[in-house]
Formats: sequence, C-alpha cells, structure tokens
Amino acid sequence: MMTSDTMFVISRRAILSVLLALPVLLALPALAQTGATDPLPSWSDTATKKAIVTFVERVTKQGSPELVPPAERIATFDNDGTLWAEQPIYFQLAFALDRVKSLAPMHPEWKDKEPFASLLKGDLKGALAGGEAAIFEIVTVTHSGMTTVEFDNIVRDWIATARHPITKRLYTEMVYQPMLELLAYFRANGFKTFIVSGGGIDFMRVFAERVYGVPPEQVIGSSGKLAFEFRDSSPILMKLPDLNFNDDKTGKPVGIQMHIGRQPIAAFGNSDGDLQMFEWAKGGGGVRFALLVHHTDAEREWAYDRSSSIGHLDKALDTAQAMGWTVVDMKNDWKQIFPFGSK
Amino acid sequence: MMTSDTMFVISRRAILSVLLALPVLLALPALAQTGATDPLPSWSDTATKKAIVTFVERVTKQGSPELVPPAERIATFDNDGTLWAEQPIYFQLAFALDRVKSLAPMHPEWKDKEPFASLLKGDLKGALAGGEAAIFEIVTVTHSGMTTVEFDNIVRDWIATARHPITKRLYTEMVYQPMLELLAYFRANGFKTFIVSGGGIDFMRVFAERVYGVPPEQVIGSSGKLAFEFRDSSPILMKLPDLNFNDDKTGKPVGIQMHIGRQPIAAFGNSDGDLQMFEWAKGGGGVRFALLVHHTDAEREWAYDRSSSIGHLDKALDTAQAMGWTVVDMKNDWKQIFPFGSK
Repeated sequence: MMTSDTMFVISRRAILSVLLALPVLLALPALAQTGATDPLPSWSDTATKKAIVTFVERVTKQGSPELVPPAERIATFDNDGTLWAEQPIYFQLAFALDRVKSLAPMHPEWKDKEPFASLLKGDLKGALAGGEAAIFEIVTVTHSGMTTVEFDNIVRDWIATARHPITKRLYTEMVYQPMLELLAYFRANGFKTFIVSGGGIDFMRVFAERVYGVPPEQVIGSSGKLAFEFRDSSPILMKLPDLNFNDDKTGKPVGIQMHIGRQPIAAFGNSDGDLQMFEWAKGGGGVRFALLVHHTDAEREWAYDRSSSIGHLDKALDTAQAMGWTVVDMKNDWKQIFPFGSK
Repeated sequence: MMTSDTMFVISRRAILSVLLALPVLLALPALAQTGATDPLPSWSDTATKKAIVTFVERVTKQGSPELVPPAERIATFDNDGTLWAEQPIYFQLAFALDRVKSLAPMHPEWKDKEPFASLLKGDLKGALAGGEAAIFEIVTVTHSGMTTVEFDNIVRDWIATARHPITKRLYTEMVYQPMLELLAYFRANGFKTFIVSGGGIDFMRVFAERVYGVPPEQVIGSSGKLAFEFRDSSPILMKLPDLNFNDDKTGKPVGIQMHIGRQPIAAFGNSDGDLQMFEWAKGGGGVRFALLVHHTDAEREWAYDRSSSIGHLDKALDTAQAMGWTVVDMKNDWKQIFPFGSK
C-alpha cells in the first residue's frame, strides 16, 4: 500500500528530476529548431542553407574551441533588399512621395518648384532627374519639421494603409519569409539581431519590432539632427532639416561601433552599400559569416544587380565571390519569397 | 501495492504540476528580491528607498492599470557621480592626464606648450586654467589618433592598474554599492538598464559590462568621429580628433532617442548635466521616476553641489525639489557608499 509519505517522496523526487531537467526543458525551443524541426523551412536544401547552419553550429557548440559567448553573438542585417523588398523604388521613398502629396495643399509654392512640381504631376522620373539633391530635398521636407512622436504617428498611419504599387500588399507584407526564419533561427541560438540600414532610423523603428522582432534599441540607420525643446511646457524632440548620420557604405561600420561597440560575427546584406559592413564583420578573429542576398528571380521577385540604381550590387558581388562569402541565389535558394507567396 | 503504472501516473502528474508552476518558479529570483530578501540592503529605510520600491512595484504589478510592458521598461543612468565617484577630478580626466605623461616622450614640443607644459610639471591647476579649451585639447590628444581596438586596450590596461589619488583604490572599486544594488533590482524586475553619460562611450564600454552589468550596446556617451579604413589589408576604425556627439544636458535626450528610440520611464543622475534627461523621462505619460543623487557626505564620500565645477548641481536640485522628484541624501539614505566601505 502506498502511504501518503511515499507519495510525497515520489512526488518530491519527480519534482526534483524535473527541476534538474529545467535547463534542458528551457532549451527545448532552441533544440527543436536545430534538431527535429527544420528552423529554415523556406530555404532549399542547397549549399547556402548548409553554410548558414554550419556557421551557427560551429559558434554555438558547447566545448568547441570555436564557441562564441552569447554576449558576443552579434548579427547585423541590412533592411532594404535584405529583409524586405526595395523595388520598384525604396519603400521609404514611396512614403516620402505620398507625404509630399499630403503636404502639397500647405505648400502652394511647390507647383512651380522642382522636384515637387514634377512629383505632383505624377512625373516621378522628372522629379528624380535632379538626382541625390532632389531626393535629399524630398526626404528633408517629409522627415523634419515635426516632433519624433508626430513623425512616429505619421509613419504608423502610412505603414498600416499604404500598398505596394505592383503586389497591392501592405509594405510590411513585402518581407522575405526566409529571412524572417533566419532572424528567428539566429535569436534562438543566442544571437542579438540588429538592423543596420541606410534607411531612416526613426522610420524603421515603427515596424521593426512587430515585423522582424527587432526592438527600437537594436535598429541602426540614417538620421537627421534632433533638438530638445519645450512646447506648452512639455519636452519634445524636434526633427531638424540637417543630416546627422548617413548609415551607408563606410558609415555602416561606424554606426555599428557607435551603437553596438562590438564587431559583429555575422552580417547580412544585398548591395554595395553593405560591403564595408561585410568587411568589418569578417575582419575580426575566429569564425565569421557574411551573407549576400542576390536578387536573381525576375518571376517571383525582381532580378537586378550591377546596372540597378536601387540596390546597386557590383563590387560587393565581386568581393563576395572572390572571398568565398555566402551568396544567396534567390531563385534557387529560396522555396518561398514573401509570407504570402510571390510577386 | 504501488504498480509501476501508478508510479508513472503519479510522476507524470507531479511533472505536470511542476511544469504548470514553471512561470512561478522562473519568477522566483525576482520575487525573492521584492519579498523576503531585501534587494537594496545598502539603502537605509527612508522615504527615498520607499519611493524606489513603490515605483518598481507600481509599474510591474500584474493586472495593474499602471503595468508597463517589459519592452518599455527603460531606465537610464548617468555615470560620473551617479554610478561611480567623480572627485577630486572626473576619472576619465585622470586617465587623460596619465596618458599625457605616457605620451610626453614622443612630444618634445609639449615642454613649451600649454596645457601640456604645466601638466608635465605636475601643475594641474595651471593646466586647467585654460578652461574647456585646455580640457578639450588634453582629451583630443589622448582619445584620437589610434584605432578603436588600440584605445580599448589602452583603457583596459589603465583601468586595471591606475589608483584613485585619495583612497588608493582601483577606479572600478569607486562605484556606489547602493547603485549597483539598484541596477540589479531594476533588471530583476524586467528593466533594460542603459548608461547615458557625458563621459566617453568607448571609455566606459571597457568596464561597464563587468562592473555594472551593462553591455556595450547599452552604453550611450560622448564620442569622437570615426573613419573606416584599411591598414595592412585589415579593416580598422580610426578615432579622429573631431567631436561627434556631446552627450550632456540637451544632448542626453537626443542620445537616448538616437540609441534607444524610446522614452525612458526612469532616470538617475546627479548634476545639472542630467536635468534634460530627467525632464525627458518624466515627460512621457503614465508613472515615471526621476532620482537625483545629492552628494551630502563629506566624511564617507564628498559633499558638493552648487559651487562645484565637477558634478555641478544647482538648477537640477531646485527643479527636483520643486517637482517632487526623488532626491538621495547620500549621508542619510545610504548605509554604505563603496563596496569596500567609505573614503
């Protein structure tokens, strides 16, 4: 006969054994991702996928001389063309163009002033004929002159309603399913994931946490200067019309140092704007990983590289091939492009 | 008699009950800190300690309308005079002065050039007679002209060996025991703790993780410009002699926005340089906390405020008193000052 004492002993033993197994139980989600369940189901079984998994296993395997402590597992991701699409124009530029239309009634002078005059007539090509100066002017009038909270609300409204001109999907749906899986896979293996993008830091922060699982403090991007002021006795940060930081090309390693203060051990990008970030990540000691997304699928997404002004990829492709970095051939390496399917 | 089937059933039930209790078990360290074990043993049982605990309980209590989600539990801490001491001179200035002496053999021209000439004769007062310009020159020659990795090593060597002129302790021992407890207490309650200091970002990152438990990516400070270059085919970041960002006064809310992208709900400081950070933290909605450390203990530490050039505290003290912010009276509120005791 079992006494209540025996029961207690058995229960306590059982409890103890569960408690002792706690570390294993807590690690289950991570184990499941690297074991029985494929953590990267949208990736074809190619050398690219194998390179990703091999890198993660090398730097996370307990007892291995290549083991990297969790605090140093820093992975940096470009955004445009790496985490979400960037065709036919950068999505943040689409936002700026929509804002110009919304603001036009308050700026009657724009009717005779480029690049606004062309833009308001629907002539995007004419508006952008002014090159970088035209783009800078469009970005400035749409990204400054308001508080950070006001800007946040403007982007929040736009991102919840604006639709991609070709797929008619929300822009936040135009994210790459394989990269969402990759972000989660790295985090499940103890990596801290950062966005390091030429895009605007305040713009990306509005959706990065919800869409990518990357909190605002792990988003690095280009920015304008800010001024701390009071309005009606309340403190505000005004967005000024002056560039503070250009987080592109050589700016990416600088932005990484300013915000993270550690060299990443893995970097993900898709254009020449990411070359220096790759070089910086690969420049440290030990096992390092660089992955370049090459847009090769004209049917399901877009195909472009050396001759494209958007996501221009030339020198970084040559360097990746010469150095043996991992290059994603989107057409062959990705089973699925967007969460909803394809373009 | 107990069959093995029964045993299995009992064990499984026991296991299940433990699993169901997992959230509670996992929360135990946090509970212990707010319950039986005092998480702030170096704080006297005064209104100050009560204000700290009351704030944390209000924003973390499940089901409370004042509950703040963990992602928004951002706490920002000044460093000099708030987490570690700053008398008789800012410790980073002591580092710079030591560096000037080390570098002097390579700069024979300093013998006839202020502020270096006075410094090398041991006349600190004469050297600093040049005011901010003199300090800027001393900081520039000691904080630029090397790579980020080289600077890191220089600080690492210095912080491991240099001793405070009065206590003869390592500078990393000159930290406030009550504030170390407070940092741990906030983190145990789901807060992410950031340093937001006028001090140099690269300087603080060398010891912030080990001493305060704050990783490099959560350190915000003043910085010089950086340049990404190659040396012997290896990528480096050169520290340039130009100011990039001054993380003091109105710079603090700006630095917080740049690095964190969220308004803190709690801020900790000790001087007029922290006033705008306090205002920014208190400026958001909901329950907010601002704590000002007032140096009132001439015997165990130092007593200074309105007339001190180091840790100048005047307007922030008036504002704190007028607004009812929490003010630490170091003499009465802290049982212990440093981990090793007192000055």
